[in-house]
Amino acid sequence: MTRPFITPDFLLENETARRLYHDHAGLLPIIDYHCHLSPREIAENRPFESITQLWLGGDHYKWRAMRANGIPERFITGDASPWEKFQKWAETVPRTFRNPLYHWTHLELSTAFGIDTVLNPATAREIYDRCNEMLSQPDMTPVGLMRRYNVEVVCTTDDPADDLHFHHQISQSGITTKVLPTWRPDKAANIGDPAAYNAYLDTLSDAAGIEIVSFDTLIDTLQRRHDYFHESGCRLADHGLTHFPYAEATDTELHRIFNTVRSGKAIDAGSSAKLQTAILLRLCHMNHSRGWVQQFHFGPMRNVNTRAFRALGPDTGFDTIGDYSGATHIAAFLDRLESDGHLAKSILYNLNPADNVWVAAMIANFQDGSCPGKMQFGSAWWFNDHISGMEDQMNALSTQGLLSRFVGMLTDSRSFLSYPRHAYFRRILCNLLARDIERGLIPAEEYDRVAAMVRDISYFNAKNYFNF
Amino acid sequence: MTRPFITPDFLLENETARRLYHDHAGLLPIIDYHCHLSPREIAENRPFESITQLWLGGDHYKWRAMRANGIPERFITGDASPWEKFQKWAETVPRTFRNPLYHWTHLELSTAFGIDTVLNPATAREIYDRCNEMLSQPDMTPVGLMRRYNVEVVCTTDDPADDLHFHHQISQSGITTKVLPTWRPDKAANIGDPAAYNAYLDTLSDAAGIEIVSFDTLIDTLQRRHDYFHESGCRLADHGLTHFPYAEATDTELHRIFNTVRSGKAIDAGSSAKLQTAILLRLCHMNHSRGWVQQFHFGPMRNVNTRAFRALGPDTGFDTIGDYSGATHIAAFLDRLESDGHLAKSILYNLNPADNVWVAAMIANFQDGSCPGKMQFGSAWWFNDHISGMEDQMNALSTQGLLSRFVGMLTDSRSFLSYPRHAYFRRILCNLLARDIERGLIPAEEYDRVAAMVRDISYFNAKNYFNF
Amino acid sequence: MTRPFITPDFLLENETARRLYHDHAGLLPIIDYHCHLSPREIAENRPFESITQLWLGGDHYKWRAMRANGIPERFITGDASPWEKFQKWAETVPRTFRNPLYHWTHLELSTAFGIDTVLNPATAREIYDRCNEMLSQPDMTPVGLMRRYNVEVVCTTDDPADDLHFHHQISQSGITTKVLPTWRPDKAANIGDPAAYNAYLDTLSDAAGIEIVSFDTLIDTLQRRHDYFHESGCRLADHGLTHFPYAEATDTELHRIFNTVRSGKAIDAGSSAKLQTAILLRLCHMNHSRGWVQQFHFGPMRNVNTRAFRALGPDTGFDTIGDYSGATHIAAFLDRLESDGHLAKSILYNLNPADNVWVAAMIANFQDGSCPGKMQFGSAWWFNDHISGMEDQMNALSTQGLLSRFVGMLTDSRSFLSYPRHAYFRRILCNLLARDIERGLIPAEEYDRVAAMVRDISYFNAKNYFNF
Repeated sequence: MTRPFITPDFLLENETARRLYHDHAGLLPIIDYHCHLSPREIAENRPFESITQLWLGGDHYKWRAMRANGIPERFITGDASPWEKFQKWAETVPRTFRNPLYHWTHLELSTAFGIDTVLNPATAREIYDRCNEMLSQPDMTPVGLMRRYNVEVVCTTDDPADDLHFHHQISQSGITTKVLPTWRPDKAANIGDPAAYNAYLDTLSDAAGIEIVSFDTLIDTLQRRHDYFHESGCRLADHGLTHFPYAEATDTELHRIFNTVRSGKAIDAGSSAKLQTAILLRLCHMNHSRGWVQQFHFGPMRNVNTRAFRALGPDTGFDTIGDYSGATHIAAFLDRLESDGHLAKSILYNLNPADNVWVAAMIANFQDGSCPGKMQFGSAWWFNDHISGMEDQMNALSTQGLLSRFVGMLTDSRSFLSYPRHAYFRRILCNLLARDIERGLIPAEEYDRVAAMVRDISYFNAKNYFNF
Repeated sequence: MTRPFITPDFLLENETARRLYHDHAGLLPIIDYHCHLSPREIAENRPFESITQLWLGGDHYKWRAMRANGIPERFITGDASPWEKFQKWAETVPRTFRNPLYHWTHLELSTAFGIDTVLNPATAREIYDRCNEMLSQPDMTPVGLMRRYNVEVVCTTDDPADDLHFHHQISQSGITTKVLPTWRPDKAANIGDPAAYNAYLDTLSDAAGIEIVSFDTLIDTLQRRHDYFHESGCRLADHGLTHFPYAEATDTELHRIFNTVRSGKAIDAGSSAKLQTAILLRLCHMNHSRGWVQQFHFGPMRNVNTRAFRALGPDTGFDTIGDYSGATHIAAFLDRLESDGHLAKSILYNLNPADNVWVAAMIANFQDGSCPGKMQFGSAWWFNDHISGMEDQMNALSTQGLLSRFVGMLTDSRSFLSYPRHAYFRRILCNLLARDIERGLIPAEEYDRVAAMVRDISYFNAKNYFNF
Repeated sequence: MTRPFITPDFLLENETARRLYHDHAGLLPIIDYHCHLSPREIAENRPFESITQLWLGGDHYKWRAMRANGIPERFITGDASPWEKFQKWAETVPRTFRNPLYHWTHLELSTAFGIDTVLNPATAREIYDRCNEMLSQPDMTPVGLMRRYNVEVVCTTDDPADDLHFHHQISQSGITTKVLPTWRPDKAANIGDPAAYNAYLDTLSDAAGIEIVSFDTLIDTLQRRHDYFHESGCRLADHGLTHFPYAEATDTELHRIFNTVRSGKAIDAGSSAKLQTAILLRLCHMNHSRGWVQQFHFGPMRNVNTRAFRALGPDTGFDTIGDYSGATHIAAFLDRLESDGHLAKSILYNLNPADNVWVAAMIANFQDGSCPGKMQFGSAWWFNDHISGMEDQMNALSTQGLLSRFVGMLTDSRSFLSYPRHAYFRRILCNLLARDIERGLIPAEEYDRVAAMVRDISYFNAKNYFNF
């Protein structure tokens, strides 16, 4: 018999790391403050169809790996049978050595299904059958998995026009995990396509019961929905941006530009930047007034493969990392909010890891001493959600600010099986600190403070930072 | 006696690495699919004049190091004697600790000359004499060195106007190494200097026997030369770019712009970008039609020291790394080819290592499942051709895609002594994987698959990817 | 009793590192060729008021950490008592694990005060009292500290309008440390605010006794001050730039632009770039004529938090790292100087570490063999002044040039307690080289040459490079 791959000491490289993890990090609940889980699936809490649906039904990370492995699309998003798709994935898995998918796959097998066999073509059938058998057990549902992974809070990602009725249903269901909405008003600021934008404004208008006929009524509408989200338990906003806009405009200009857009006409890039900036600033004011935390995710280029986008739609594995210059705009944007007294607690997530150091330095300019770590450098995101990505983010934060005040990990996932990524992150964190103690970079006599820091980053910092 | 520097276990840090290298990577032939060797020198296969000629006759890496070491130009590219130049290089060598030149120098001494003495001023004369003595032996010729290093395929870099007669001569000579041309049509798309451009078009016109009087006849001419290259065994294109162009244009515009250029008049930057984009797209169509692989090398700034350029010409050590933004144009360019159904297998090489992660992510958007690793992230190039450069490239590829499908190393060299860089690369690769096994990041029970992966990246992936 | 944190072997990870440091690096004096110490404080050589004044009176690194830790401004730059401020800093210290402040703090306690107790809230009072007691000893003054740390040379940073009388006073005082001015003419080239610029020109005019009425008289004035600095012992210039300007202009244009500015009128960005380029080029000519070394510090964004700037002024912790593209302009700027035969020995410091590799490659294009390491890649600066920052800078330099010719560390500090950063740097350097020897990347038989290289980078390279 070979030693299992995912042992209790997985990733923990020395005795100090093992103590930090097993005595501290590993014992704490999960606050998953940003994810893309479906409130409907939580509310309905139906069993999963199959491991194929669960793993391959919507996971564009796996799809990208399969395409790179030369697997035809039929076995990825096409009409192949669940077993055929699984088989192709099993073929691909041993081709993913050094990719985070290899670890995620085996962490999920081990922690959700109790399977310690390594997945490859030889073990595919056995694992497929065993997973599907286990998925018929009553606790293998969305809510059951949250319980299994000790998930205390989950924040989904929701559009301002959403009536949040699944959220209301969940909150009345008596489940122990707190499931909260997140305000994600990207569509209200994305003016690129006037037809799509106006259609969205109509939807928003309907949701709020306000006719959007001007810049001011747009803001009123958003404010009403913001209030509604707050009443529904939301305490967190999320703003997804290609890159931060920053262009100043007078009220007169804004009104004129908005009216042009609202009448269905195209506007130039300069006007678009002005309007987008103004809307985003107003949204940030709302976040600040309510004492919410606001997140900014910036840096992606989306749908770069037009052929694939036409065939499969968005979020199918054809987004990528942009290399935009950003520091000047971000500084101006945050400075404006700070000058006006409207800067909420904020988390900045950059997608291009080449930007890590300047982003970590940037947030430090807006720490105001009002609370620990008011401005946060967000955990390694999307394409960086792996060992070196997380280490790089924590190293940048450590040198430019206070790692000790970091609110830590989130899954950003669409899958109910992604919770072991929190354990993954915590193991990496314990390793980083333990390595420093062993190398004499942190005094061994301060072990207890390091352990407290591990507990903070794993759980307590988020607990204290967010007003859930 | 001190232990030799270049031992069989050089760079191999643990037992797993040693097994992977000695039982697998080290046993395989070399496919050197991109280099700048002279077909003439291969065809003529003359003995080398001296170690000075071989090492210092054209190696701008060494020249840069010598200049940084305060060596006057007379001893670098000037009229100093071969021994004086060698002596100055020997003085410089111990000043290059931590630079790849230190390793390359000793790898070449050890594997080509059997010399295990460390080069420094004290050993210079002995090594100089010994090398020159060995260079008089009959197997120390271009072809002899290819045989010694077990080189199966070499692809040179050739201009579309080249008649490839040295290639024809080589292919009829019965040597065991397959020496193939590579289509490098940069001059056909570099419109910057209208006079130089028109002179080049005249040369091209003569080579093809077509008069270039319009955009269409330019494309016809290039197509005819492309056909000729194909018939001569070429299966690989290479496009060297400062940065990717992307500007759309109508046919009418293109014809007008081309006619202006062809009449010897200057065009503005916008028109130049349109014409360059269009030519490059058409060249990519040709690559695709023929089932070739196309390479894109982007990111350098060339000849940045005008004084030195005037004195010494190009490729003398005065090129450097640019910091251009590139993701938007690359995405648009590849998307256009993909949309039109003309995207050939492609290898992208970036020169600025700060771009590694987004480039590795970018290629993944155009993997289409038609073959494993259709889109390749090219091996660490030029200024990055060293341990950390190669590790960074492989780490970026590992996290963003499939390292297992990587076509691996090439020398990109002008020297017949550069083949040990393949061994250097393979040792680094074995180390990376072995470290992961030892740290428990790859299951030890999957050793055989890791060994197969090592063989693939060292040899079989390239063998299968290219249609040589 | 626990083992002290700062032991003699702090950071030194193997026996080779310990030998390199203790037998070589650690024995040499300090040449601190760039800092922001006050010549007045050196000349007056007054005792320090308290550890609070010394540590927290002007250290914006500590202030940033305290703000990130949620400490109200009153305890940072406000009217809290010295003990209260120290207490808040002591609270913050154990929150800075992995930040360089943690190491700097304990290195200073250990080497200046002989205190080996770790600072945290429990030890704060004891350490506060002990430091203040020690500060009353007669050798705890600016000059005493320079003597204690074996500082041979210090270069301050001075405005061209400065009469340098504190420097003259120091040079006549008979202190053993050579204290020299550095020419920092940034205000003479920063045209952004015409009113402020003209006011500065008036000051400069008064200092030189020349009326500045034209571009030519500006240059004459600067030349006269440059001469004066040279006579006062200055051999070093420093140019602080957001990013390198490069825009060509005719003399006629320059005169016209300057006259517009001098008349108090605003100019457009293009004209401003032309004038700034021209002034900077002329300043570089002066540096070259005198055989000075010139430094370029580029990349920061300053005063990005307007609210804080209004409340606290500049240099209070609200500067940050920009992400400007820079290679094209830097290449053009250096090329112009090189083409005109006016390129002085130069040190380039970039603030964004993502630029390390291309900057290290860039300088190599202007090495001319006139002396070893004419062009220098400056030591990790400001936000990068920590272990990984220094390692990254040295790794980039190692792969792109000659680490052996590096002029090494400087403090860039405003504090007389920063000298242990030289020891910190030297330990990191010894570690890097020792690791390479242990891994077989540098031959062990070349130990003596490595030791010489350590001595060179620690002291002798700077000694030979600068004409102090």
